[in-house]
Amino acid sequence: MSILREGEKLEDLQRNNLKIIQKKDAYRFSTDAVLLAHFVKLSKEDAMVVDLGTGSGILPILLSALYPRAAFVGIEIQEELADMAKRSVELNGLENSVQIIHGDLRRITDYLKPNCADTVVTNPPYIPKDGGLVSPNRSIALAKQEILCSLEDIFYAANRILKGRGSMFMIHRPQRLGDLCCLGRKYDLEPKGMRFVHPKAGREAHMVLIEFVKNSLPGMKVFPPLVVLKENGKYTQEVEEMYYGEKGQ
Amino acid sequence: MSILREGEKLEDLQRNNLKIIQKKDAYRFSTDAVLLAHFVKLSKEDAMVVDLGTGSGILPILLSALYPRAAFVGIEIQEELADMAKRSVELNGLENSVQIIHGDLRRITDYLKPNCADTVVTNPPYIPKDGGLVSPNRSIALAKQEILCSLEDIFYAANRILKGRGSMFMIHRPQRLGDLCCLGRKYDLEPKGMRFVHPKAGREAHMVLIEFVKNSLPGMKVFPPLVVLKENGKYTQEVEEMYYGEKGQ
Repeated sequence: MSILREGEKLEDLQRNNLKIIQKKDAYRFSTDAVLLAHFVKLSKEDAMVVDLGTGSGILPILLSALYPRAAFVGIEIQEELADMAKRSVELNGLENSVQIIHGDLRRITDYLKPNCADTVVTNPPYIPKDGGLVSPNRSIALAKQEILCSLEDIFYAANRILKGRGSMFMIHRPQRLGDLCCLGRKYDLEPKGMRFVHPKAGREAHMVLIEFVKNSLPGMKVFPPLVVLKENGKYTQEVEEMYYGEKGQ
Repeated sequence: MSILREGEKLEDLQRNNLKIIQKKDAYRFSTDAVLLAHFVKLSKEDAMVVDLGTGSGILPILLSALYPRAAFVGIEIQEELADMAKRSVELNGLENSVQIIHGDLRRITDYLKPNCADTVVTNPPYIPKDGGLVSPNRSIALAKQEILCSLEDIFYAANRILKGRGSMFMIHRPQRLGDLCCLGRKYDLEPKGMRFVHPKAGREAHMVLIEFVKNSLPGMKVFPPLVVLKENGKYTQEVEEMYYGEKGQ
């Protein structure tokens, strides 16, 4: 298929006949994007939604199925990934609702007007610059580690482009919760809702879904936990429905 | 029984034959104290443990059953409650392991030496000074609302008396999580472990158990959730065992 470049493959998203181009040996979207897409709640159907660090474009593509009237902008610093995301958008015929920008979110207002977004979504790199091993694959390292974009850069960018009372929905590791709450306050993005993701019942959480609201008073809600796998290693019904469920189909 | 004053009653703690004096119409200990006592992990058997705002003395009395070799100090600003706590300590023959101080934790070093404590435990007032209705009962209002003691006062006191690497174990409302994380950082008490308490499965958390460690690097663990009641309204097995279980008996 001519839309694919060397080393790329096409993955079926099992929803609305959507497909996405991914690299075989580089960063690929994971369950995280699916969980985050289903945690997002838009304040209105025709919201303007910005994905900070969109990678393969998976979040706007998944969200476009859940919110067909919303407008999405995904910004990605890796040129190759941004190009791949653009081709995925075309492949799905989503040019009218999803725009991919190859750019640096640290200079977000070079591309987008301040206070233009109703909602921000982001699945940022999880690992601090100096923490853990950098992947020898540069593309994976940039997507997973805070090399070109720190957690603070994300909060700065969200603060710049969100309208007052606008929400940022993020998925991250629970290990960073202290950072997440304190950076949120620093950038006037109050943590308001959290849902912890446990790989199986009775295990420690390995991810957290978190909503920040701009210019909001303190007051956190902690929703019931989300368990990914049953004891037999298969998806729980809730996650199964996120992957293959009714909504948006 | 002469140990009781007017308006007081004796409650059986169902553990080690322990009993506690409570006021009929004022602040009484709740499930929170039981959950917190079981969340506490002492770094050594003969630890020096301080309870900030001990109320009826319930935490040191419960903990003395779980950790018979530890030394406990409870500080309480309400004279009547402190007096009641002292009588409960005597009633249980715990004078050698539990000391109750009638004092103001905002001046903690008037009573205790800096860096004297291995562990701090606290079940502080949940409601901000200006939030919600004050109870018309002064004793309840002081125990539940940040009138004589703000959340920040607790962190200040813990920072003063804890040794380096010492832990503070707290139970609080999830609504305050942003405050808890940011105050922790301000007073060099890094949030390191959390367990959310849900009244029933599938409901939002109504309490959070949280451990802060002094002079520690960031890195949070989120343990499996604790569910209090089964669908039929009876305690889950885990909570049942906290109330009536083997440990410490």
